[in-house]
Amino acid sequence: MDFAAVLARIREASPRHRLDIGDPDLPPPPELLEALRKAKDFRYGPAEGLPEFREAVASIFRVEPGEVVAVAGGRHGLAALMWAFRRRRLLTPTPYYPGYFDIAEAFGLRLELVETDERWIPSFSGRGVYVVNYPNNPTGVVLPREKVRELVDVAEFVISDEIYRDVAFEHFASPMELSSSVAVVYSFSKVFSVPGLRIGAVIAPRDVAREVANFNKATINVPPTPAQRAVASVLDILPRRRAELSEVYRRRVELAAEALRLKFVKPGGAFYLFPQVGDAVGCFEKALAAGVSPLPGTLYGRSDHVRLALVEDEKKLAEAFGLLNAACGVETGP
Amino acid sequence: MDFAAVLARIREASPRHRLDIGDPDLPPPPELLEALRKAKDFRYGPAEGLPEFREAVASIFRVEPGEVVAVAGGRHGLAALMWAFRRRRLLTPTPYYPGYFDIAEAFGLRLELVETDERWIPSFSGRGVYVVNYPNNPTGVVLPREKVRELVDVAEFVISDEIYRDVAFEHFASPMELSSSVAVVYSFSKVFSVPGLRIGAVIAPRDVAREVANFNKATINVPPTPAQRAVASVLDILPRRRAELSEVYRRRVELAAEALRLKFVKPGGAFYLFPQVGDAVGCFEKALAAGVSPLPGTLYGRSDHVRLALVEDEKKLAEAFGLLNAACGVETGP
Repeated sequence: MDFAAVLARIREASPRHRLDIGDPDLPPPPELLEALRKAKDFRYGPAEGLPEFREAVASIFRVEPGEVVAVAGGRHGLAALMWAFRRRRLLTPTPYYPGYFDIAEAFGLRLELVETDERWIPSFSGRGVYVVNYPNNPTGVVLPREKVRELVDVAEFVISDEIYRDVAFEHFASPMELSSSVAVVYSFSKVFSVPGLRIGAVIAPRDVAREVANFNKATINVPPTPAQRAVASVLDILPRRRAELSEVYRRRVELAAEALRLKFVKPGGAFYLFPQVGDAVGCFEKALAAGVSPLPGTLYGRSDHVRLALVEDEKKLAEAFGLLNAACGVETGP
Repeated sequence: MDFAAVLARIREASPRHRLDIGDPDLPPPPELLEALRKAKDFRYGPAEGLPEFREAVASIFRVEPGEVVAVAGGRHGLAALMWAFRRRRLLTPTPYYPGYFDIAEAFGLRLELVETDERWIPSFSGRGVYVVNYPNNPTGVVLPREKVRELVDVAEFVISDEIYRDVAFEHFASPMELSSSVAVVYSFSKVFSVPGLRIGAVIAPRDVAREVANFNKATINVPPTPAQRAVASVLDILPRRRAELSEVYRRRVELAAEALRLKFVKPGGAFYLFPQVGDAVGCFEKALAAGVSPLPGTLYGRSDHVRLALVEDEKKLAEAFGLLNAACGVETGP
């Protein structure tokens, strides 16, 4: 089953608990909605993004505005960077985010897999350009700092997909802190619960930033300007929002650790669990029949795991975990 | 001078009359602004677009919803289609819209030029995939129906960029009316004066539509969903808006025919003039010094023309034309 087939199956089953897509359940911040409602200027802007947007994002990442390019969401930044490094050896750890393969397939790129241990920690050894995603989708793990050091020592360049960086329960170290051969892909989809807006940014050395701006020009001309303006005008709320989100999802993870009788590596961030279930598709079908929709791990390169997006409140999640225990859980004696 | 250098030069000169970028000067329709203000749903949607958007656009173009794919503006649809036909021979008439070459360059595609006569009408003879744009940017011309017939008879496939189809002073025939081997690229940027929103559509045979949806998935995941919803909810205003726009720009073209002492082919649509001036860059510099910014025709493949975007009201345009006559016009005796 590919992603479309899985989604069609879920829509057909119409389960009570939708734990499949990573569509954040927390409402967008009222400040952002207010800024969007006030939008008056719908004109074109520069391919690299509006100056106020680049300045606002630069101040968050403590870089120069020339190192920031607006993009139409995280996927767009990833496509721009994978295309920019298309002549290099591209590698990514497994389990992987399937979007990387959507890009690779559409553009005829090869993407090699890097194995991970039982804690989902990869061994970085081959030279090449790494596409990494921490806090990770689908596992939620965060790399310890010494692993990030190993990564930047080995990599020719790192494309660091950090769209979950704002949801962290332990210290998150970006490869950008340890090396200048790094491009960060950032998005406002998850932190502000607005994936439909399509607004994100790439933070990269100037020569790479210029290639991302050229990709903008060739693919969408200009990232959405009202969204850039609205986001730039409310970026001062980001630290508070980060703290709120991290606390909400930390509690949901704690609940899972107590209530879910499936084996999983405890996440350090993001809002996913990747428990082991024996047979991914079997668990998917049994869970669906019980009213819960996980995603089969086959979509992420693992046939014996499922992914759960923790996008319901604790009361509903407690119920969903109970149903999952019955559908996919290991027998625990009396 | 490339496009960025030209724009930098214009910003530096800061002329009173900005006739360079095709940023429509008419305000967006209040119905659309109201619909955008009411946006409440910022979630993901399907890569091919929301069902209500596809249905609304399909009813306008009298096709099936399965033949419509939402895209993030006209450029995005063009990129998707040029990429889909990358292994074919790609051709486009000259003068050309430079965006096609931005796409070709970024993706390593070759785009051959097709010569046109003194009325800007091309001779279509070679087999291949044609990228055409009528009503035309930069000339404003519309092809007579027999020429459209010649085009579809010769072409393996036609990528028909129709982002100016709503601004027409004479009958506009889309290649889609004469052949099924056609994909139309449509955008709401010009008709609704919202180029910063990035919302458009591709109307194409189902197999081509699927390739556009795959390109969406690989480049932006999902076209902006609040913009899709807002546009779909107000599409009943399109016929009125079309009539209004066409009348406004028709009057501006009539004014130019009376007041501008430069030789140009009278447009059948869009909102550009492409007058002959001898030396494009010389006229550009003299016009800038006089307070008007045309774009040098060199950007469009013609070194003896300039492009004027008629994006000021008639009073201002009359003044701008007077300044242009003095800066770039031929001497007319007493």
